[in-house]
This record gives sequence, C-alpha cells and structure tokens, in this order.
Amino acid sequence: MSTHVRFVTAAGETAPVQVGAEATLLDAARAAGVEMDATCGGRGRCRSCRVKVLAGEISPPTLQDTLQLGREEVQDRFRLACQTKPLSACLAQPMPPKAESGFQILAGQADLSDSRLQLDSGVVKHVIRAQTPQGEHHQTSDLEEVLACLPADTRRHLPLELLRKLPMALRKDKGLLTVTTFNDEVIDIEVGDTSAHRYGMAFDIGTTSVVGTLMDLASGEQLAAVGGLNPQAQYGGDLMSRIAYAQFDETKLATLRGKILSGINEFIKEACEKAGVAPEHVYKIVVVGNTCMHHVFLGVDVSYVGLAPYAPVVRDLLVYPAREVPLKAAPNARVCLLPIVAGFVGADTMACVLATRIYESEEIRALVDIGTNGEVVMGAKGKLFACSAPAGPALEGAQIRHGMRGAVGAIERVEIDGDVSCKVIGDAPAIGICGSGLIDACAKMIDARVIDANGLLRREGAPALAPALQARLTQGEAGRQFVLVPRHEAGRDHDITVTQADIRQLQLAKSAIYSGIVMLREVMGVANDDIHELMLCGGFGNYISIESSVKIRLLPEMRTERITYMGNAAAIGAQMALLSETERLRAFELAQGIEHVALAARPEFQDIFVDGMNFSGETFAAEERRLRAQARNAAAVAAK
Amino acid sequence: MSTHVRFVTAAGETAPVQVGAEATLLDAARAAGVEMDATCGGRGRCRSCRVKVLAGEISPPTLQDTLQLGREEVQDRFRLACQTKPLSACLAQPMPPKAESGFQILAGQADLSDSRLQLDSGVVKHVIRAQTPQGEHHQTSDLEEVLACLPADTRRHLPLELLRKLPMALRKDKGLLTVTTFNDEVIDIEVGDTSAHRYGMAFDIGTTSVVGTLMDLASGEQLAAVGGLNPQAQYGGDLMSRIAYAQFDETKLATLRGKILSGINEFIKEACEKAGVAPEHVYKIVVVGNTCMHHVFLGVDVSYVGLAPYAPVVRDLLVYPAREVPLKAAPNARVCLLPIVAGFVGADTMACVLATRIYESEEIRALVDIGTNGEVVMGAKGKLFACSAPAGPALEGAQIRHGMRGAVGAIERVEIDGDVSCKVIGDAPAIGICGSGLIDACAKMIDARVIDANGLLRREGAPALAPALQARLTQGEAGRQFVLVPRHEAGRDHDITVTQADIRQLQLAKSAIYSGIVMLREVMGVANDDIHELMLCGGFGNYISIESSVKIRLLPEMRTERITYMGNAAAIGAQMALLSETERLRAFELAQGIEHVALAARPEFQDIFVDGMNFSGETFAAEERRLRAQARNAAAVAAK
Repeated sequence: MSTHVRFVTAAGETAPVQVGAEATLLDAARAAGVEMDATCGGRGRCRSCRVKVLAGEISPPTLQDTLQLGREEVQDRFRLACQTKPLSACLAQPMPPKAESGFQILAGQADLSDSRLQLDSGVVKHVIRAQTPQGEHHQTSDLEEVLACLPADTRRHLPLELLRKLPMALRKDKGLLTVTTFNDEVIDIEVGDTSAHRYGMAFDIGTTSVVGTLMDLASGEQLAAVGGLNPQAQYGGDLMSRIAYAQFDETKLATLRGKILSGINEFIKEACEKAGVAPEHVYKIVVVGNTCMHHVFLGVDVSYVGLAPYAPVVRDLLVYPAREVPLKAAPNARVCLLPIVAGFVGADTMACVLATRIYESEEIRALVDIGTNGEVVMGAKGKLFACSAPAGPALEGAQIRHGMRGAVGAIERVEIDGDVSCKVIGDAPAIGICGSGLIDACAKMIDARVIDANGLLRREGAPALAPALQARLTQGEAGRQFVLVPRHEAGRDHDITVTQADIRQLQLAKSAIYSGIVMLREVMGVANDDIHELMLCGGFGNYISIESSVKIRLLPEMRTERITYMGNAAAIGAQMALLSETERLRAFELAQGIEHVALAARPEFQDIFVDGMNFSGETFAAEERRLRAQARNAAAVAAK
Repeated sequence: MSTHVRFVTAAGETAPVQVGAEATLLDAARAAGVEMDATCGGRGRCRSCRVKVLAGEISPPTLQDTLQLGREEVQDRFRLACQTKPLSACLAQPMPPKAESGFQILAGQADLSDSRLQLDSGVVKHVIRAQTPQGEHHQTSDLEEVLACLPADTRRHLPLELLRKLPMALRKDKGLLTVTTFNDEVIDIEVGDTSAHRYGMAFDIGTTSVVGTLMDLASGEQLAAVGGLNPQAQYGGDLMSRIAYAQFDETKLATLRGKILSGINEFIKEACEKAGVAPEHVYKIVVVGNTCMHHVFLGVDVSYVGLAPYAPVVRDLLVYPAREVPLKAAPNARVCLLPIVAGFVGADTMACVLATRIYESEEIRALVDIGTNGEVVMGAKGKLFACSAPAGPALEGAQIRHGMRGAVGAIERVEIDGDVSCKVIGDAPAIGICGSGLIDACAKMIDARVIDANGLLRREGAPALAPALQARLTQGEAGRQFVLVPRHEAGRDHDITVTQADIRQLQLAKSAIYSGIVMLREVMGVANDDIHELMLCGGFGNYISIESSVKIRLLPEMRTERITYMGNAAAIGAQMALLSETERLRAFELAQGIEHVALAARPEFQDIFVDGMNFSGETFAAEERRLRAQARNAAAVAAK
C-alpha cells in the first residue's frame, strides 16, 4: 500500500511523491526535495519538522506530537513530520517554529549593580536644531550646518546613505534632528527628537545554540531575550564537522553563513517585536562565538582554521557596518566582534573572561565554558592561560542512544536509592535523556556500583547489586545497557536506557574538558587546592550537578563549594561589551595577554586524556581483587 | 499606406507597431515604447538613434546616414532611425554607439614635465612574502602575518571582502602577495607580484559631456581617453532643467544617477579594454563635476541645490569605496571627489584651479570654463573669487535652429569677405552649425554689418551691404535669417541659416559668461588691463576664436594675446589629483579660501547682464544717425 503526498512551499506546490506504508511525512518531504530540518534526527524530540496537514488522512497524533506541539496545535492539525504517516493522499505545509519553546535557554543578564560596569556604549544621540544654509553669500552646506551643532571631534565623513537623506531630513522639522554617533562616527540622522530610543543587541553564537538579548543602551536594561538552535546545526553537530562541511567550498561556506545570518536577522526582528522597539534604533550589536562561529558569521574562509596549526584568519577587535556583514534587520547598527585569543579560544571565551573578571583576581581561578567545544581559562591578575577542548556534542544529547537536548521530556536528574527514580524537565513523561541527566545518571551508577571507574557496566549475575538494579542491566539491540525508565513507565515501545556506548561517548566528552583543566594546571604548576574558584560558564554548565560532575571527573576533584555557577557568562560578557566600550576595548587588551595552550600539540596531553577517561572510584577488577583478598582474610580468620 | 515595425531589445522582441507612410524608425520606436535617445532631436546630427535593420525594406540611406555612420556601416544596414522610413514590415535592433565618433573630445593631459607635480597618488603596491601561521604555540593569525610585512602605519582594519579572501590568497603562492594600500588603508590583496599594475581614472562629468582618462599611477602616463555625451542629457540640457526633473522625486533622481553610473561604468570598461588593463587594477578614481553633477553622481538629493540660496549638501573632499557608490566596473577603487566651493562652483572648477595654478600667480589672472554652466575664477596668490554663470546649452548647439554639437558636418568657422565661406568639421558637406561656428558667424556678421551691436539683423534693402550678402538676408519660416550655406550647396532641402532667434539665444548665453567676468572684476575693483591673463578652460573654450569671442563680447575687451587656451583644464586638474595626493589635498585647502560671488544675489548684476547682451560696435540706429549726420554735413559742405 502506498499513497501520495504534496507539499506547499514558498515556491508553490510540489509534484506529488509516492511513499510506502511505513513512510512518514518527513520521508515524503525528503523524497519531494523539500528542505526540512530534523534536528533531533527524526525522533520526535524537537520541533524543527513541524508541519500543518492541510488535507488528507494521517496517523493519530503520537505522544511526541502532543508534548512538542501541545493539544491545541495538534487539534489544528499541526504535526511533527517525523511522527506522522499519511493514510491517504495528503497535502502538507512545512511550518518550523523559529525556536523550540521547550528548549532551555539561559540568556543571563549583566550585573548593572556592579559599579565597575560603566554605561559607555559609545552610542550617543545628539538632539540638535541645525540651520539650513542661509543667504547666498554664506559659503556653507547642509552637512556643515549639521556638523556645526555636533561636538568638535565628530568625524566629518558620512556614509553615502546618510548624505543622501540629509537635505530632506534637515528641512522636515525646522532643522530638529537626532544625530546618532558611535565612537564619534555619524551612523544615523533622524528627523525630530528620538533620543529616548537607543538600543543594542548582544549575541552569543554557540555551535549548538544562539542566544540574543536586546538592551536599552541608556539604562542597561534587558528588554528581550531570544534564542534557539544554531540553524547551521544540520550541517554538523560539532566544530570540526561544521568546518569539514565548508572546507575548500565557497558555496557551502556561503550556505553556513546564510543560515546564521538569516537566523540572527530573525532573532533581531523577534526581539524588537517583543520589546516594541524599531530595529532602526538598534545601533550596536556585539557578537561573540568561538573562532569557527565568528569566522563563518563574517563569511571568512575557515578551511585553514580546521587544519594544524588551527590559526584564525583574524584575531582583532572588529567593527563593521551592519550593511557590510550584511545584517539587514538592523540597518543602522555597527556590528562589533570581540577578539579571538588563538585556535578555537574565541570571542565567546573573551566574553566569559569579561563577565567573570577573572583578570583582576588576586587568587588563581579557573573558568570552564562547557559546550560542544569546551574552553578553560585559568590564572589570576597578570597572567591567564586558556585552552579549547573538543568535547563534541555528546553533552548536548547527540550520539547518545536516547539522548536529546534539555527540552521538555528530558531526564535531567537521576537518583539511585535501592531503585532508580528520574526527574524529567517539565514533569512530563520521559522521552529521552539530556546531557546533565546523563552526567547525573553515570555519577549515581558509579555510586551504586552499576559501573566502575573504567566506565564498564557490571556484568549480569555480578555480586553486590540490589535485585532491582540487577534487573535493569539488560542486553539491548546496541549491547549492554542500564534501563532508566522501562517502556511501560515511559508509555513508549522501548525502554529509556544508558548503553555501554553512551558511557564511552560521555567519557570521551568529559575527558576533553577535564584534561583541559589538568593541562592548564600542569602548565601553571599548581594543584587543585591552589584553585580558589572554578567558575562554570555557559548554558550547559549551569544545569549540571556539581557533585555528579566531580564524581564522573568532568570537573576536577576539588572542594565542591569552590565550584560556582556563573550563568551564561559568554552572553553576559557580550552584554557588558555592548553596554560599555571600556569593556569591549578591555577584551582586546586582555586577549593579547592570554597564553594559549594548544592541547593537541602537547606531547603529555595524550596521557592526561587517557587518564581523564576514567571515572572516580574503583574498577571492577580492583573490586574483585579486594573482595577476593577480603574473602581470603575472612577464610584465614575463620581457619584460625 | 502604412506598415508594421518590430524591435529587438534586451527584453525580447516587441509587438509590431503600425506606422504611417511618413514615419521614421525613430517614430516607430517611440510608438513601440522602445527607449531610444535622439540627442540631436532627430535631425541626423548625432548617432544616438543608430539601429541595425535586420529585416524589411527601408528608404535609401541619407547623406546624414553616411556622414554619421560611414559607408561600411550603411552597407551593413546600420542606419540612423531618425533618417530611415520603413517601406515594408521591418525588424530593427537599436544599437546606439557608446560615444559619437565624430564628436570632438578634448581630454587633455596633465603636464608631467612640470616638476611641481609629484607622483604621489596615495596608491602603493607592497609585494610581500608573508608567512602562514606556524606552530600551534605561536599566537597569530593570517592577518597579523600579512600586517607584519607591511609598513607600521598600515591600518589594521580590512574590508570584509578582503578578510574573506585572505586565507586562500596567503597560501596560493607560498605567501607571495601584493597588498595594495590607499593612504595606508588596505584596498586589495592579490596572489603573486602585480606591482606593475597600478592604475587610476580621472573623470570630468560635464552637464553635456563626460571625459575620462585612464592613467598609469606609477609613470603618470595616459593610457586611454574615453568620452561621450552625458547620458543624462535627455532629461534636460542645462543644470536647472536637470535639477527640476529630479526635484522632490527620488525615483527620478535614481534615474539620473543610474544613467551617469552606467555611463561611467561603461567608460571604465572601454578605457580598460583599449589599454589592455584589468579593471580590478584601477585603484583610484577622481571625479570632478559641478555641484549638480557631483551630487547626482553620489545619489545625493539636489532638490535644494536648485532653490535659493543654492547651497550644496556637502562641500568636503570625499572618498568612498567604489562598492558604496556603486561603481561596479572598478570594484577595488576608491572614488575621490574634489571639493565644492559654493553654489554651482563645484569640483570641476577646483580642478581648473589646480590645472592652471592660478592660486600661485603673482599677477591677477582669470580662468573661464565655458560650458552649459560657465564658471569664472579671478584673482591671484592669496585671494581668489569665483562665480557660476548659467549660459545654457546654446553654445553647445542646442536651441539653435541649425545648431549641433562640434561633430563632423558642423560649421566651425565663418569668413565673410564680400561673400560667405564656411569651414566645416571633417571637411564634409555642412549639416549644421556648432557653438564656435555660431560665435564666429556672428562676429563676422558684425564686421560685415549684417548685424548691429544690439544683435539686430539688417533689414532688407538697407544700404551699405554687398549684394551677395544682401541676397543672404531672407525671410524664413522662423522669421528673418542670414543664409550661411544655401540648400543647393549643402545638398539639403533647406538652407543653413542663422536666425534672429539664434542670435538672441547666443546673446543670452554669452552675456552670462561675460557678466560673470565683469562682476568679479567689479568685486575686485580691477580693470580689464589689470588682468594679466585670461585662461580659457574646458573643451568648448578651446575651439572658439578668441578674436570673435571678444568681438561678440563673450570675452572682455582686452588684448587678445593675454587670452590663452588651457585645454580641458577640469580634466587635467582631475588627472593631477589622481596622480598626486598633494594636489588632491591642496584642492580642499584652496576651496575653503575661495570667495564665492553669487551673481543672482547681487543687485548690480541685472544691469551688467543687460549691457552684456550687446555686441561690440555700433547699433543700426546710431549708424543711421551717423550716416544722416554725415549726409547732412556733406549736404552742408556741398551747399557752401
């Protein structure tokens, strides 16, 4: 049995494609050549393949449909294409949401009560009443009349765009004009007094997600926060696969760039709509991101960024007119990029440095930005070291059998006390496990001795395991696994499990971060106890359990009260640079003084990494030896 | 009888239009909505309506066809649309030439032997061998490696365009790069050594015509000269009508701007083709023109430039990237505009000031740029005065019954010695009269007493006129006229004449220029004899007879050896600013010191202008009185 499906797209209606009985609307879209994201891999765990079914019979809504879209949308025949099978000839329209609503975004907020943060955004609005040129004997021009009303250090050079509209503007309201300058450069001329409207945006472009905040440059107030997936994600989950996609291929680089530019343009519009702000009044946009995100955003070739010695094309503090980038949604803005340190230690790390003020610490501190690529900065006032650790997307739920991002339905905490209990985001039925849940699960499995220090799942029939846990150790399709939520509890056709392969992925990811910290410690010649504070930055870092992270050796074995959550420091640092030119310029000065430690180029790193794969605690082999020795001792005692 | 005509255009073939027996292909084109210039008004005096007849029978070629297009083109069925009547259903393709070949263009050439002219164009090519970033411990970037090879004062900021291509360029030829800077700003990066190729262009955009020269910035050598009509001319022959067209209408301003931009783009391509130069190697373009041409070129609103007090929007020395203008034909160029003094005394006048070096003269000198708008600068080292005189297009042959521009077939000199003889450009049969011919004709007609000081044509039957001249005084369709070439001589169906109305037009035009000179003389309080030299600038000024110009009082009554031809000084000055930043910057300094005399705002100007209408010599009324007095005296003597 087969049926036909057509799609309504911007380009019109597609020709019908024939699909088999088991095919979903997502399969049909692919067959029809309709571009449709499936960020979660078609597992009903995100909303990127959302469609509206305009005509035809379809399979009943799944739990995922209802969880992701809500009852109301489902009633209105919205569906996840990956969950929906056509039962008769269907007509469907792709309608992906701008951002996934269930997705946890941590935008953060620069601390305005911190007296060290000056509100000196560099954007100034001058309300002037300029003369029109008077009298034919008076040698002057429209521009000169306007400049005469502005501070003497205002640059005379105007973008052509502004020269073009100057004569009309000057004469519309008896010379009453608002002239906007950024660092003494005229960037806008408006009729009347618009001095109340002076806004900016800060963007943190992560490998996986993008966060933006709209701020009032006068008050520093946050007016709107927006965010969602990085729309490039479909072209590779981690940095290296993103680079590999675009390497030596201008067209593909243009594709990546187009994705992020249109994404940012949409976010600008969305934030301005939310706050009721005209996008023309957004005058400064600070963008941070790692080296790859930074370069791709600018359309700069990343081919060699992905090859040793992984040198950036440019590390400077950059400013470009939005029109040059181009960011069309904020035509009057100057787009500012924070500097890059070296390798993949990029503008996002510099934003973390600004936000944590680690550069003025008297004691040794470290900041760890856990993400698809993890960055570590360690040091104190006078000297900072930094490295970048390629953790990969496992901590974001990718390459994990039942992994998902931290959205509604994701297991985020696990308790094992005789038996297993899980905490699920949104208190919904569990549909998968997110990064922080996986960390917690493994930590608790170590405590419960379900896995050992090598990450090995205990074999069946092993001693010393409660029967309830023993029952959860099963053989799945993908090998040995530990069942977190059995199928009947989840209301699904399969158990939600942690597999041996999942644990391996987690080990690789967490060792990258852990080894980065160890490497910097070794370069500095300090011990864990010398680190006064370890600051967790980044959206992800703020969702993990510190105890569990130390247990699995994602974080070093130090006193947990010395490990603190810093919120989304990259986003906060971007906001600080947005609100304050002092901070933005400081970033450049600091970046030049930070010493980059290239992990891969250090011969000792290999050993550090292998050791970092281990969890804390005992291996089963050691346990066996110990138990055997205990038994021998007991036997010897008994024999006496 | 009627027939059908179709046209092949860029947009495809038009629907056939039905035209009457007397209609030309030009009429048909207009009926079909095909845009076709007819700069001469459809009189066969230019080549702007050139077509190729692809199919159908047409009327035999006219003399104008052959004169304008040459025998070869006529044989290939090229025709002037205004001269050609379709005899059967026709298919024709508009093929206007880029420039009219018969048109006299005076490009001029900066004097390289003048030791005062430094070759310091500001464009420098640095051939470097840059390292690629080496070693992962070395914190650097592609950009820093390149900057390390450049002079320390090179600006770090690169256009995004160049950042984007930097990584590939750096690695293509082992780091061998040519980095081009303009005033320490990086404007191009090329693989290999391209230091031999460093070019620029100078453009003089006149109201009526455009002249461009391609120069080697290293040697100062002129490589190609191009020129033709200003393609805006169809929207108004003089400044004020051009402004009126675009006033308060953005779309029409965009039309004017589009015309000149595409014209300049074509000229750039043409010049580069002629010289075998890659347009990418054109790095600096200097543009001069009067205030209106300057503003429209930049797309700056001229609405208020056309209203008292005629203030420019901007007078500064401007530099914009070609991409911002946009001038797409020379993507890497910086476009430099010379400054404006005030009113219509614009960048072209500043170019004349540079070229004549009037600013360093110890004696009082004057320069006169005769064109559709005439400019006069007078003074000496330390103080210069300038004014702009709206002569209108009569001197270009417009609004003159048999007027035409200075092209093949135009009468350019007239001798009257008993009878009339004419010198025709190209020694071809006369088809009209150009500006210099009209000046000469009137001067000789004054000498021959065909017209008097008031510009009145002598009435028929007047005494003291040779019979051959008497016979040439006829009554034409447009009133009284003087026949220069009778129809049988011209091989035409009408005489070529100077009408009373033509003389009035010439009087208005020449008085504008003359009055400007007088006005500046009065402001300075000097007499004609105090003017050490009067320098004729501009293409037109170099074709006129100095004696005749003084005779008709276009030029002041001063010793003719003090009146000199300077060539196309505006074009030469633009070339000087192209070759030398010293000259370009000097222009700004000079412009600020020149005092603008606004003619229309001076109450005494009215009287000066009315007096300036007169030719030198006697009026017929005075002559009559004198002759009557002589007769009376003779009678009295005889009676004694």
